[in-house]
Amino acid sequence: MERIQSLSSEECLQLLSTGSVGRIAVTRDALPVILPVNYAVDGGSILIRTTEGAILRAARAGGAVVAFEVDNLDERTMTGWSVLVTGTLREVTAVSAVLRAEQLPLVPWAGGERRHFVRITPGLLSGRRILAQEVAAS
Amino acid sequence: MERIQSLSSEECLQLLSTGSVGRIAVTRDALPVILPVNYAVDGGSILIRTTEGAILRAARAGGAVVAFEVDNLDERTMTGWSVLVTGTLREVTAVSAVLRAEQLPLVPWAGGERRHFVRITPGLLSGRRILAQEVAAS
Repeated sequence: MERIQSLSSEECLQLLSTGSVGRIAVTRDALPVILPVNYAVDGGSILIRTTEGAILRAARAGGAVVAFEVDNLDERTMTGWSVLVTGTLREVTAVSAVLRAEQLPLVPWAGGERRHFVRITPGLLSGRRILAQEVAAS
Repeated sequence: MERIQSLSSEECLQLLSTGSVGRIAVTRDALPVILPVNYAVDGGSILIRTTEGAILRAARAGGAVVAFEVDNLDERTMTGWSVLVTGTLREVTAVSAVLRAEQLPLVPWAGGERRHFVRITPGLLSGRRILAQEVAAS
């Protein structure tokens, strides 16, 4: 039987705020790529710290529509949740916004100089939970 | 300092074969989405079991170019790896291929009837490993 439950927007935002690693889909050299990134939730939008590359180029292109996903899936028990954000990606350039972004718990995970911030402003937000077989059957 | 190492194609394929959950980026209603899926590696390509939906529609569109990502990232130690496949997505329709796909360890994770198989034939394969700070510094 189907064991998938849809999540409300509130649940999606709450789950997003518990994570720190997500995956963003952007276009690089005309091809789709999925890249793992560190993120923080900031007032309903997603902030990512990045360096020169596909993500920053997409942000600078101005309002590129991207997908961003966070999940917590247990391969062993086959349960978990995933949240999907579709939104516009822009670089954070205003000095005040950059200074505020630097206060967020956005550790440059992969090391190196990651001086740039980009923001995903969600347009669509959806999520689902995959239940354990026992729960679903009850 | 930068703590990222590029992985060889052989390492990427080896890591792909250790996982069972990945994420695929496809277009749904003209918008990008990232969806978690169960997968199995089958002779150098990625097999996914799915139901009617965005993935199957993209596959039936005939050779859609998609991104597929598998990772194992530890938020606590900030280490791990990720592998990215960019390739063409097609439905598996030949009866002999479907019968073979049904023998693969492709459990329909989310339950429900998932009678369809799609295959990603990799065009590009890349991966990276994020090392612990100590290892990178030595």
